[in-house]
Amino acid sequence: MLGVLTALEVIRVLNEYHIETEHPVEIVNFTNEEGARFSPPMLGSGGLTGNFSKDFIYNIQDRDGVIFSEALKDIDYVGKTSNRLEKISAYIELHIEQGPVLSNKGKSIGVVEGIQGMTWVNVSVEGKSNHAGSTPMDDRTDALVCAAQMIGKIKELTQEIKGLKTTVGQLDVTPNTANVVPGRVDFSIDIRHEDDETRQHALQRLKEQLSSTSFIHGTEVTIHTLWNSDTIEFSPTIRNAIKTSANELDLPSLPLYSGAGHDSKYMHSMGETGMIFLPSEQGISHNEDEFTHDDDIEKGAQVLLQTLLKLDTTI
Amino acid sequence: MLGVLTALEVIRVLNEYHIETEHPVEIVNFTNEEGARFSPPMLGSGGLTGNFSKDFIYNIQDRDGVIFSEALKDIDYVGKTSNRLEKISAYIELHIEQGPVLSNKGKSIGVVEGIQGMTWVNVSVEGKSNHAGSTPMDDRTDALVCAAQMIGKIKELTQEIKGLKTTVGQLDVTPNTANVVPGRVDFSIDIRHEDDETRQHALQRLKEQLSSTSFIHGTEVTIHTLWNSDTIEFSPTIRNAIKTSANELDLPSLPLYSGAGHDSKYMHSMGETGMIFLPSEQGISHNEDEFTHDDDIEKGAQVLLQTLLKLDTTI
Repeated sequence: MLGVLTALEVIRVLNEYHIETEHPVEIVNFTNEEGARFSPPMLGSGGLTGNFSKDFIYNIQDRDGVIFSEALKDIDYVGKTSNRLEKISAYIELHIEQGPVLSNKGKSIGVVEGIQGMTWVNVSVEGKSNHAGSTPMDDRTDALVCAAQMIGKIKELTQEIKGLKTTVGQLDVTPNTANVVPGRVDFSIDIRHEDDETRQHALQRLKEQLSSTSFIHGTEVTIHTLWNSDTIEFSPTIRNAIKTSANELDLPSLPLYSGAGHDSKYMHSMGETGMIFLPSEQGISHNEDEFTHDDDIEKGAQVLLQTLLKLDTTI
Repeated sequence: MLGVLTALEVIRVLNEYHIETEHPVEIVNFTNEEGARFSPPMLGSGGLTGNFSKDFIYNIQDRDGVIFSEALKDIDYVGKTSNRLEKISAYIELHIEQGPVLSNKGKSIGVVEGIQGMTWVNVSVEGKSNHAGSTPMDDRTDALVCAAQMIGKIKELTQEIKGLKTTVGQLDVTPNTANVVPGRVDFSIDIRHEDDETRQHALQRLKEQLSSTSFIHGTEVTIHTLWNSDTIEFSPTIRNAIKTSANELDLPSLPLYSGAGHDSKYMHSMGETGMIFLPSEQGISHNEDEFTHDDDIEKGAQVLLQTLLKLDTTI
C-alpha cells in the first residue's frame, strides 16, 4: 500500500513539473501480496509471471471456504486480460523493511540486494508417552526434552555460520497434558541465508545434529524438507541507481538483503528488478505496532522519483 | 476394577474354606477413580472422606454438559447414605503399578510406602514476536529458545537431586507460526518427590534457574504454583503385613512409592491404609497397551488374602 501511495506521489510530481519520461510508467497494485486470507501470498505477481496458474489461484479457499475468484468478483476487482502488464524494462518496489536493521543503524534508505534463500523443514520427534508420576527418569524417552536440546543446537548453529538465520516458530506436543511424559513433538525450522551454498551446508549440519541428538535421547526423528527457495539477486543497474539517488539526496543508505518475500521475487523473472526499503520503527512488523515515520516515507518517495528518472535515461 | 475382582476372589476363598474373620470385611468399588469423564478424579473416596462436598461433586459437568448427579441416576448408581462406610480399622487397595519398576526389577509385589508429594507449576515466558525472515538473530527475544533451555535445566535438576521427577508435559507456543519468532511460550512443570522438604527445595532451585535463564535471554518469566500436595505415608502395620505375606508366599517384593494418586490417598485420613502394586507390562498405563499378566494377578490376590488374615488378628 505504501509502495502504491509513494508511486502515485511520484507520478503527481512528474505531471506537476511537466516531466515526460522516455519510457511509459505504470503503477501496479498487486492483489494478495500478504497472503493473510488466501495462502500462498503474492498471488498477483505469481500469476502474472506464470509461477501459479489461473486455475490454481482462482480455486484457493479462505478459512470460510470462499474461493478466490468469488472474493474478487464480490469486491469488483476482476481485471481485464487486455489490461495486463506484458513486458517491463525495469520494476521498482518500495516497501518497509519489516526488520530493525535500518532503524538500528540510523539509515534512511535500504538498497535491497536481493531476497534471501529459505528452506522450510518439518521435524517429528517420537519418544514414549508415559505417566509423569510413575515413570522413573531413567525409564523415560521424553520427546520434548529431546526437542528442547535440538532447539538449542538449531540456535547455536547461527553463532557458527555467519549470517545464518534459523527459527523454530511452530511446535506441537502430543498428548500435551501436564502429567504425561510427551510422546511426540513436531516442529518447524525456517532456515535463511543470502548464500545458497551456505544455506545447504547449514541444512546438512542441522540434519546431522538432529540425528545425533535423537540418538543420544533414544528417540526416532523424521526430517522432512517442505521446500527450498534459492536467493534472488536484484539488478545491479537498479541497485546502483537507488544508491546514487540516495547519495545525491544526502540520505544515508545501506545495502541489505530482504528476509521476507515480496512481489519483486516473482517480477525478477520479467526484467530488471529492484527494491527500496524504508525503516520500520523497532523492526516491528505484521503487528498493530508496525510503524514508519512520515519523513522517512517522504525520503523514500524522493529516492523512488530520482531512481526512476535515472533509469529512464540509462535503461 | 482389578482391585474389586481380586477382593471378590478373596471373599470367595474365605467362604469356601469357612474362614470367619474377627472384623467385618467389606469390598468398596469407588465411583470415578480415574476422573476421565468427570474431573477431578477420586470423587467417591474424596466425597466419603469429606475432601469434596456432595454439592461440589453432584454439579461437576462432563464435556457435553451432563452433571455428575444426572449421570449417576441414569445408570442407577445413586447409593444410600445408610449404606455408607462409617469407620475402618484398615483399608487395603490393590492396583497395577502404572510404572515399569516392578517389571524391570522382576518383582511380583510392590509394597507401597505412600503416595509421592507433587507440585504443579505453570510458567509463562514472554519474548518478542517478530518476522523470521527480517529479524537478525541478535535482535531477537525468542521465547521458545529461552523455554527450550529452561526445559533442559528442569531435566538436569533430576540428576542433581536423587529421586526427583520433573515433567514438562504441556507446552504452547504463541503465535505458533513457522515464519514468526515465538513471542510467548506457556508450559507446565510437574514436580514429584517422596520427601516434601526436598520437593520444596527443588521448586526453589527451579524458580532460581528459570529466573536466571530468563534474565540471560532478556525475556519476562512468570511462575505460578497451581497446587502442592504433600507426600502421604501409608500405615507401617499394613506395609509390614504385605511384605511378610509376600515373603511367606515366596514372592519377591519391593517397597516403592506411588507416583500416581489413588483412592488410598483420601482413605488414609479414615484409618490405617496401605496398597499392593502389581507389575505393569513395560510400565505402560492409560493406554490400550496397559497389561498385567494373569499369574501376577493371582499372586496379588494371594498376598491380599494373607495380608487381610494377618491384619485381622493384629489390628
